[in-house]
Amino acid sequence: MKKIEVIPLGGIGEFGMNCMGIRYDDEMIVVDAGMGFPEETPYGVDISIPNFDFLDDYRDNLTALVLTHGHEDHIGALPYFLKKFNLPVYTSRFTMALAEKKLDEHKMLGDVLLHRVEPNDIAEIGNFKVEFIHASHSLVDCFSLAIKTPLGTLIHTGDYKIDDTPVIGKPYDLKTLAKYGDEGVLAVLGDSTNATVEGRTPSEKAVIPAFEEIFEQTHGRIIVSTFSSSIHRLQIVFDMAYEFGRKLCVLGRSMQKNVEIADELGILRIPPDTLVDLGTSRQLADEDIVYIITGSQGENRAALWNMAASSYKGLEIKKGDTVVLSARIIPGNEKNISRLIGNLYKRGANIIEERRRLIHVSGHASQEDIKIMVETARPKFVVPIHGEYRMLFRHKEFIKNHIEGYTDENVILIENGDVLEFDEIGARVIEKHELNRTFIDEESLGEIEYDIIRERKKLAYGGAISLVVKIDKTKNQLVGEPQISYQGVAGIDLSNGFTEEARKSVAAAIMAMTPQEIADKHWLQENVRIHLKRFLQKETGTKPVIVTTIVEV
Amino acid sequence: MKKIEVIPLGGIGEFGMNCMGIRYDDEMIVVDAGMGFPEETPYGVDISIPNFDFLDDYRDNLTALVLTHGHEDHIGALPYFLKKFNLPVYTSRFTMALAEKKLDEHKMLGDVLLHRVEPNDIAEIGNFKVEFIHASHSLVDCFSLAIKTPLGTLIHTGDYKIDDTPVIGKPYDLKTLAKYGDEGVLAVLGDSTNATVEGRTPSEKAVIPAFEEIFEQTHGRIIVSTFSSSIHRLQIVFDMAYEFGRKLCVLGRSMQKNVEIADELGILRIPPDTLVDLGTSRQLADEDIVYIITGSQGENRAALWNMAASSYKGLEIKKGDTVVLSARIIPGNEKNISRLIGNLYKRGANIIEERRRLIHVSGHASQEDIKIMVETARPKFVVPIHGEYRMLFRHKEFIKNHIEGYTDENVILIENGDVLEFDEIGARVIEKHELNRTFIDEESLGEIEYDIIRERKKLAYGGAISLVVKIDKTKNQLVGEPQISYQGVAGIDLSNGFTEEARKSVAAAIMAMTPQEIADKHWLQENVRIHLKRFLQKETGTKPVIVTTIVEV
Repeated sequence: MKKIEVIPLGGIGEFGMNCMGIRYDDEMIVVDAGMGFPEETPYGVDISIPNFDFLDDYRDNLTALVLTHGHEDHIGALPYFLKKFNLPVYTSRFTMALAEKKLDEHKMLGDVLLHRVEPNDIAEIGNFKVEFIHASHSLVDCFSLAIKTPLGTLIHTGDYKIDDTPVIGKPYDLKTLAKYGDEGVLAVLGDSTNATVEGRTPSEKAVIPAFEEIFEQTHGRIIVSTFSSSIHRLQIVFDMAYEFGRKLCVLGRSMQKNVEIADELGILRIPPDTLVDLGTSRQLADEDIVYIITGSQGENRAALWNMAASSYKGLEIKKGDTVVLSARIIPGNEKNISRLIGNLYKRGANIIEERRRLIHVSGHASQEDIKIMVETARPKFVVPIHGEYRMLFRHKEFIKNHIEGYTDENVILIENGDVLEFDEIGARVIEKHELNRTFIDEESLGEIEYDIIRERKKLAYGGAISLVVKIDKTKNQLVGEPQISYQGVAGIDLSNGFTEEARKSVAAAIMAMTPQEIADKHWLQENVRIHLKRFLQKETGTKPVIVTTIVEV
Repeated sequence: MKKIEVIPLGGIGEFGMNCMGIRYDDEMIVVDAGMGFPEETPYGVDISIPNFDFLDDYRDNLTALVLTHGHEDHIGALPYFLKKFNLPVYTSRFTMALAEKKLDEHKMLGDVLLHRVEPNDIAEIGNFKVEFIHASHSLVDCFSLAIKTPLGTLIHTGDYKIDDTPVIGKPYDLKTLAKYGDEGVLAVLGDSTNATVEGRTPSEKAVIPAFEEIFEQTHGRIIVSTFSSSIHRLQIVFDMAYEFGRKLCVLGRSMQKNVEIADELGILRIPPDTLVDLGTSRQLADEDIVYIITGSQGENRAALWNMAASSYKGLEIKKGDTVVLSARIIPGNEKNISRLIGNLYKRGANIIEERRRLIHVSGHASQEDIKIMVETARPKFVVPIHGEYRMLFRHKEFIKNHIEGYTDENVILIENGDVLEFDEIGARVIEKHELNRTFIDEESLGEIEYDIIRERKKLAYGGAISLVVKIDKTKNQLVGEPQISYQGVAGIDLSNGFTEEARKSVAAAIMAMTPQEIADKHWLQENVRIHLKRFLQKETGTKPVIVTTIVEV
């Protein structure tokens, strides 16, 4: 009996790292290769990626990687994935342009096979027939996927909302979705990001009135900060600038990159005589310029932060500026954003926040969008994906309570590392695996295993001590005094003879050992470490990491 | 000409660490000694406190410490303050009970002079006459302070809201405030925590209807999590338990402590035959018990977290439980709370969140409360305190735009470490000081200076290397090979001979030095460190902390 297996490597129970293997018989495609935004940044890492080594067991099955859209939590791990599994990639033109930039940075562009697909193209990948369904989202050129197998069809929603009036492109393609609904859908794997939010998600166009008001009422400079990938939003700001006779200048590396790509592909319609460079922008009167800028999350190295705290390429926030924070607060960034706003106020700016005006809408399906999705596809099962557990559970709760025909059994909650099996009888999790994340240091582009992070956490918590012990290698006895150095160790007063006592204590411990014991250098090393550890704990209550070196003389 | 100086040591531009010196002539009182909740917890610290050493310059002036109320951000640093400056303390009976517990933990209860004051008591402290004005807040026994000096009166609001119907105690004492308003107030130093929030803050009683509904509709266990200091809220839950015939069990150390104190002082009215201990609670049917529990912020060691993730004293969250999260999310705790909720859902609990039901109200003045405060006291100046910059600025903005007679000049923004001077002419900041925070490791109760944290941050970021070099002390030349050990260092493959190359490189560097250079051990130590640092950076791109030990043989 043939089976479908759904194996999430990331994105379930967390924000980011979206990645999922879908296997039928001896073939497996992978949907998305996203990065995550770890809390471990103090430990010298920048991003996290799924532990792709888990797919080693399926190496011979892997046939293709399909990317639903170009957000970093869906394509950010692409180079790291392709380094391990060089599969052909299927995706939209905009996503492909972003992917190419990324692969170019890793100098691997020439080594990868990229297939560009259009909405309603069907890619035949072995036993899989994947149709790319146009999806509306905060980004452009996004797909839901209809993944047809001999056993049934899965709908992977990607990130989506049901937007009837997007700024760029067409509404969500419910017609194609309905076609699959009529044929019969085995399961919808559905975006849960906004499953806790009642009602419909507003259209991308919903922010236009507030922006019109702001442009109408503002006489000073307008500085709009949003996600660099929010192409609909950028279009609105470009249109407003044109309508109100302002020039527009783009600040921040990722913002410039995305505007350039979207312009080249003809997705963003830049009005004539509107875009100016930084130099030109500075010649203009305050009432004649609008800046679009990165840094809406209070990122410490982004253009807006620099403009608020010091200066960015000579630009500073000044009295009379109106700063529009046209983005939601991503959880975890609250404190940085509050600091950013404090700095903006200090410089005398007027600040327009999402909480007070409709200047941002989400790109994700709220409960009534989810209802449209499920009632159109009418799947046998729904599997909530993309979200923290709270959201996955509320996704399930909503469907059970508000959509006819769905019960506890039809809505299946899974976790990263689960193997969810579908067959003709039903669906069930048949295996569970613990998946560790992998961390990336973006400077070296190197992977950092969790063990290294664990060691760094210990160092952070208690500091480090280097203990050096000299041993006479023929007599196997202590020579001179042990040497101790500290880094980040608390509770030690270097002036009160504490180090001297610690030295003496270690020396006494070694002198109590037999030459046979000392001859075993590993034993010796471990035992002097433990001795010093106990001494420190007793005397100071601190628990530094102790690195012991035995020097033979 | 005599002057008043207002010198905030904490609480301005940040949440927590509220502490302020107020000086007239050669006398200074201090208002509050609060702790903060630092982001530096991964570096082995638990809380932060203001850098009280700054007050050393005023040591001979200091006359008293006045505590407005018992929240940790106002009294959490008390023992550390009193260790440095053993001043007499003035505060309310409930605050004093909390302070006594705290001082007892530090074994310094006998050494401190505590004055208990009642509302409308006036303490004459040298030239200062301090009247304690009853204030409504989420806690009980709170004060605003009228601080009368020969030059004029300052109103320090403490934390407050204008609650006309608190659950426990009287409404805010606007009458006394108005008396000072009539006499003339120089400045209001006003709580800014909710200055961004429109309207009035709802009364503590506002949550009763939602709690009534919950108790009415729930058949399983009810588990209410709130701040252990929210005595009004605890009273409501006790009353509900009694009304609906449930027994109540208190879980979590700080919750038990506060219930005990409030009960002893007769502040909390525990209904007859309602409070039960854990053992009794477990004998009861689910419909007959309500738990009040710590951990509403998703704290990893709190009772609720344990009950959700594993078990707390044998209690586990189970299907049918209703968990009421009756608290706001303190910024920075979003991720932990989301994880907590995920765990609660996994166990099958029904969760009632603040976002969806009126089960929590703030204890801080919203804009219309602020308006009442300012219009009653009618001060010459307002100085926003207690809050992040964003809140202080919005506080100023609101007063300027919505209260008659206040302009840019009347509302004064200050920062920690500023010296704000008032005299007969006006007010101005005359000095600015950079204040570092001090950190506390609660296990050892020891202070940790920022330098130690800085070292730990470096260790966290790149790991540590111990480099040991043997030098012949008579010939001043290298003996044998340098020894290298790693902790948390990335990018080093221990199997590929990298360490061997690093050793050789260091050895070559030393062999290129002259015996005169080597004879200077400090020079040698620093130079081999720099050499290895450069080698690592070139070969691996990593920047670990390198601890070098020179061993003389």
